[in-house]
Amino acid sequence: MIQVTLIQIDNYGPWTVTPGPRAEPDLQALQSRLYGDLEREFGAHGGIVFFNRFDNLIAISNGMDYDDHLLIQKSIRNRYPITISMGVASASTPIEAQKIATKLIQDGGGAQSEERCEILEIDSLASEDDSQVQIAHIDIDDITGTLTDVASAYDTSLVVYEVLVTLMKEFEAIGGMCFFIGGDNYMAPSNGITEDVLRDTLKSVDKKTGVTLKAGVGISTSAGRAADLADIGLEDIRAKSTDDSVIFLDDTSSY
Amino acid sequence: MIQVTLIQIDNYGPWTVTPGPRAEPDLQALQSRLYGDLEREFGAHGGIVFFNRFDNLIAISNGMDYDDHLLIQKSIRNRYPITISMGVASASTPIEAQKIATKLIQDGGGAQSEERCEILEIDSLASEDDSQVQIAHIDIDDITGTLTDVASAYDTSLVVYEVLVTLMKEFEAIGGMCFFIGGDNYMAPSNGITEDVLRDTLKSVDKKTGVTLKAGVGISTSAGRAADLADIGLEDIRAKSTDDSVIFLDDTSSY
Amino acid sequence: MIQVTLIQIDNYGPWTVTPGPRAEPDLQALQSRLYGDLEREFGAHGGIVFFNRFDNLIAISNGMDYDDHLLIQKSIRNRYPITISMGVASASTPIEAQKIATKLIQDGGGAQSEERCEILEIDSLASEDDSQVQIAHIDIDDITGTLTDVASAYDTSLVVYEVLVTLMKEFEAIGGMCFFIGGDNYMAPSNGITEDVLRDTLKSVDKKTGVTLKAGVGISTSAGRAADLADIGLEDIRAKSTDDSVIFLDDTSSY
Amino acid sequence: MIQVTLIQIDNYGPWTVTPGPRAEPDLQALQSRLYGDLEREFGAHGGIVFFNRFDNLIAISNGMDYDDHLLIQKSIRNRYPITISMGVASASTPIEAQKIATKLIQDGGGAQSEERCEILEIDSLASEDDSQVQIAHIDIDDITGTLTDVASAYDTSLVVYEVLVTLMKEFEAIGGMCFFIGGDNYMAPSNGITEDVLRDTLKSVDKKTGVTLKAGVGISTSAGRAADLADIGLEDIRAKSTDDSVIFLDDTSSY
Repeated sequence: MIQVTLIQIDNYGPWTVTPGPRAEPDLQALQSRLYGDLEREFGAHGGIVFFNRFDNLIAISNGMDYDDHLLIQKSIRNRYPITISMGVASASTPIEAQKIATKLIQDGGGAQSEERCEILEIDSLASEDDSQVQIAHIDIDDITGTLTDVASAYDTSLVVYEVLVTLMKEFEAIGGMCFFIGGDNYMAPSNGITEDVLRDTLKSVDKKTGVTLKAGVGISTSAGRAADLADIGLEDIRAKSTDDSVIFLDDTSSY
Repeated sequence: MIQVTLIQIDNYGPWTVTPGPRAEPDLQALQSRLYGDLEREFGAHGGIVFFNRFDNLIAISNGMDYDDHLLIQKSIRNRYPITISMGVASASTPIEAQKIATKLIQDGGGAQSEERCEILEIDSLASEDDSQVQIAHIDIDDITGTLTDVASAYDTSLVVYEVLVTLMKEFEAIGGMCFFIGGDNYMAPSNGITEDVLRDTLKSVDKKTGVTLKAGVGISTSAGRAADLADIGLEDIRAKSTDDSVIFLDDTSSY
Repeated sequence: MIQVTLIQIDNYGPWTVTPGPRAEPDLQALQSRLYGDLEREFGAHGGIVFFNRFDNLIAISNGMDYDDHLLIQKSIRNRYPITISMGVASASTPIEAQKIATKLIQDGGGAQSEERCEILEIDSLASEDDSQVQIAHIDIDDITGTLTDVASAYDTSLVVYEVLVTLMKEFEAIGGMCFFIGGDNYMAPSNGITEDVLRDTLKSVDKKTGVTLKAGVGISTSAGRAADLADIGLEDIRAKSTDDSVIFLDDTSSY
Repeated sequence: MIQVTLIQIDNYGPWTVTPGPRAEPDLQALQSRLYGDLEREFGAHGGIVFFNRFDNLIAISNGMDYDDHLLIQKSIRNRYPITISMGVASASTPIEAQKIATKLIQDGGGAQSEERCEILEIDSLASEDDSQVQIAHIDIDDITGTLTDVASAYDTSLVVYEVLVTLMKEFEAIGGMCFFIGGDNYMAPSNGITEDVLRDTLKSVDKKTGVTLKAGVGISTSAGRAADLADIGLEDIRAKSTDDSVIFLDDTSSY
């Protein structure tokens, strides 16, 4: 089971324009700080946070319980002008866990509700026995040589975001999620997706977008450890230790 | 003339995997901090930074000269384990300025060159007389009611990123650029794009993606002030002070 | 047993002036960030960090083991231009634990050694059974009315730092430590110091410095929880629920 | 004339315990972040901030006007759960400027007033013609060999803070101020203090505390540049280019 936490800033839209519109550089600094802090806070417990839309962040939180979440929620209130609500759910696929987590938040009140404040709802936690996180770290083959060093910065970005949207769609279709993590890198929580299915998915995206993707995949009991394994796998491919576009590394016995 | 600064982390890819892959939560915290800091540094001089791909950031830097950039470059070296290179160029359209800025960086050495370190190249600065920044702040009409509060968090994000890619393409075709700034918000440096062309562009994106976009547009001598005006324009539309999907606010006499 | 971690930046002095002196605002930002980050990292595991001299920080780290420290050490390396070494020791008094921790660091190489890098030495960890942290939160009675609102900012600070030095000396004499934590607040890890001894110590400082001190004291298995209890105790005194200048709150059974 | 800005968090004491006491690690992170941010904000305009007591910070702000301060004040409100008030004054000595700045803040309302919010009062700004900042960067001779590498961390800190208090008093007596900036370093805004007087002051502190102090002194039109010169002077002494314990570097013509 993979455990997903949806983090939503309470009543953020209205706050950004009250009493008048707040300066954009301040809001950008606020959002990037909040993301960086949440990344550190979840990271201290083996979790990983994806910035997603910055006001709605998605974390893989296996191993973290109610108290761990509560401490983070309080800490944000003590250091930021805004508060956050969180919904936590576990399921056999990332997309399903995320759906349940979203529902918890929505049932607690709208994103622009003045009443909702610091909801913390848990549908179910991944137990120690069945906790498992599969994460794919995907990147574009030789983006430096084919794009960054030859195309304009904007054109390179356009390709990177087109690949993102295509990956997001294809992963959703097979039960996963995919997030942009900077540069030409993507991370896909992908429990239940096999090597064959993943290889086909990457090839399908290659075809649609014109790039060549590769992926290291890690499987472990925590998101942090799974991501570490995924990174090692990706490095192995870069080092040409394989012709394959995907490598799976698993440190759980149950796989 | 709009002035664009392309900021590129030196030799970042290789650094992230030396000696072995560095923990992803650390890299994410590093990147978000760097972005937040650059936003503050440029913001202190009236500029705005867009995170773009996080390792390649794009700033609108009208009013900032060589020394302003140098101070920022040194400050990053003193507080981060990485260094940055910058290319600065001004032109009549954002897309053109960005192209020249990219070229400066590329000519200084590849993004994964071990030799290139702290390039700071200026092609041309916008002079006080002809400095002008036009920025559109675009958002999705009632995303809370139509998506955030009813669809899953992931599905909402998918729409937001699809809209982003479509906006990126359409703006490039008319000389502009477009960036995601969180939530359902986009900012488009758009010098030279008229009200009619902008209205048509948004309608075209609406049609392709199924959402309804609106935009406040600010024109001023600095990016910060232009963004402030754009925010006010967007608020006016939200407050239904107009039926139009675009409002232009201009505090320069030359427009 | 109280567990103390001494954190020392490796070869910091030489780094600050290589190749030439680095800008002071940058160094100040670096140091305050490092402190804030370490506070969050240790805080996520129930610990507390005192900034001490900023390049030598002292943490109360009960409940944290080798791996917890290692993760923090690596994370700093991944996000800062400097690295840190750590020595960890537990003892029945704070001052003794700190002495052993210092020795570990010194034996690993000098503070300005070019060779020493990321030492992580543990003398002994407080076991779950005998882990206990006693922390006093001390403040100056009505500093706002007697100093902040009537004296100059500098004169108020002078008093606050004179009180600090006097507290530091008196606490050392009875086996404790005392740190400034901002405003008119001090925190004293004080395992083994009884109510009577603490009351006398505060009175002695009052006499020497002309202020009136009060203290809430918390006793628990972690520094974070002990500090929470100390805060509650201090609030009780402020709320005049007692005439006494000290309140002890203990949530361990062994006391 | 030296220009001083006193920055005070509005109603901070009450906020830290409302509704109940907030977690100390959160408050420490908040304070250190605020300091780091203010250091960057003032630093972007050539200023320097000293953390002082963290809830009352003192900046040397020559070259910064009302709008520069207002932008910072707004930016803090947009990113923090607290707001700040500021008083700005210039005078021929640092201690006098600080006194006037304090008075402005006090007249605006008490430090724990619920009503006072975001006061920004300017008594007088240093004009371009008469702007001058003299800053001494002082450190303890060979603290690594005499203390850090041989004494316990706590004992070393005790000496460092004793030296601080002695410096604070002696500088006040001659019209200056002195602040701790980490490690064994102190910075003293010291307009009007001559080489002879400074040399005698350091010797007096040496005698009272048992350490040996040295100082590089910079004189310029901005605090940042003065601090840079002070750093260079201190490096010259370290490099034994002089037997003297003080070096003055001046890049203004008026001196």
